[in-house]
Amino acid sequence: MRYELYYWPGIQGRGEFVRLALEQAGADYVDVARERGMGAMMKMMEGGGTPPFAPPFLKAGKLVIGQTANILLYLGSRHGLAPKTEAGKLWVHQLQLTITDLVLEIHDTHHPLGPTLYYEDQRAPAKRRTGEFWKERVPKYLGYFEGLLENTGGPCVTGRRLSYVDLSLFQIVEGLRYAFPKRMKAFERDIPGLVDLHDRVAARPNIKAYLSSDRRIPFNEEGIFRRYKELDSQLVI
Amino acid sequence: MRYELYYWPGIQGRGEFVRLALEQAGADYVDVARERGMGAMMKMMEGGGTPPFAPPFLKAGKLVIGQTANILLYLGSRHGLAPKTEAGKLWVHQLQLTITDLVLEIHDTHHPLGPTLYYEDQRAPAKRRTGEFWKERVPKYLGYFEGLLENTGGPCVTGRRLSYVDLSLFQIVEGLRYAFPKRMKAFERDIPGLVDLHDRVAARPNIKAYLSSDRRIPFNEEGIFRRYKELDSQLVI
Repeated sequence: MRYELYYWPGIQGRGEFVRLALEQAGADYVDVARERGMGAMMKMMEGGGTPPFAPPFLKAGKLVIGQTANILLYLGSRHGLAPKTEAGKLWVHQLQLTITDLVLEIHDTHHPLGPTLYYEDQRAPAKRRTGEFWKERVPKYLGYFEGLLENTGGPCVTGRRLSYVDLSLFQIVEGLRYAFPKRMKAFERDIPGLVDLHDRVAARPNIKAYLSSDRRIPFNEEGIFRRYKELDSQLVI
Repeated sequence: MRYELYYWPGIQGRGEFVRLALEQAGADYVDVARERGMGAMMKMMEGGGTPPFAPPFLKAGKLVIGQTANILLYLGSRHGLAPKTEAGKLWVHQLQLTITDLVLEIHDTHHPLGPTLYYEDQRAPAKRRTGEFWKERVPKYLGYFEGLLENTGGPCVTGRRLSYVDLSLFQIVEGLRYAFPKRMKAFERDIPGLVDLHDRVAARPNIKAYLSSDRRIPFNEEGIFRRYKELDSQLVI
């Protein structure tokens, strides 16, 4: 079966967590909006029946699955990227939902007044939110995942077997390095397990091939992780 | 089996979406922090192994399940609050994750600079975010669910069978009425299907009994839905 991934064509965004899972699995998929334009995607969102609220969504045969973590829940079972037991499945899904929360907080560093205004219209509150984010939230979230790696002994979050959560944590480290190079450099000494996990994921053959291909869209200032120099200051406002 | 629900004892918050499902199901559960204090809850979050990142979490036998939507995914299958097919399960979970996104946006109306500062320290950005929320986001989210009710013909989101998503949508309508009485009153004429769904859920015997019991914590200004007069103005700043 050839999967169809529907996501905005110009950004990594939330779709990237799905792309990484598809690539690691060596799954056959088409990135619809990139390869065929946005028309088909918009049509599915406007359709009757059970339309998704927003991209990304995945067409798998007759199924259309929306919400990033829900897509990964589905793919994880089919491609060996999640444990087989119910307890294991619920656990990695729980972790992915925690990453979902973190991703929204990352987005809100540059959009504290909401997704409907431009960054340029919210620069002052963005500075304050970013300061709080690095002071309180990054240590809490990344400290939590670092602690899980300590509990299992690693190298993956659940121990020895790779799951989609590990792929997503790679993307979190990669994205924070892009968006906040100075802050992240200083912070990385506190999360050696996550940095090691990041490096191991990056070195996996399928991921390595993907990252150097043109299927990997470069980071830019339209996505979740944006590099705005004024937000990467070490000074908390 | 007696479930143990772990959540902050003084608020409805995210725990309420779980409480409503447990109550509708007539499940045997103990609201641990309310009945036995916070000690047990904090201990589980600090534990080794697979600790939850944050409340709510549910102990079901040996399983400990975190993240609201993940708990509902688990309960839905066991208590007839979700479809039995894989496609149906993924669909209602997808809808619940969309509600999760909405809940965070509701929270951010009074906490645009993040959860670590007091409301009193972010009143001006809260006004702007709330204005955008009611102008752009409420119509988008509630319009989406209203459209689904039109597609299925109702009275529930998936048609005739009640699911945990319907219980959560009841809570969204109830909460928005509490937090923004003026704005919501004006908006409700656009969402007759959701108002009807709300009323039907409220009239169900188990829910009705729950709402009039002291197990239902009253809304207050510590939870997701907070009534701040200055945010309920019809003027968009």
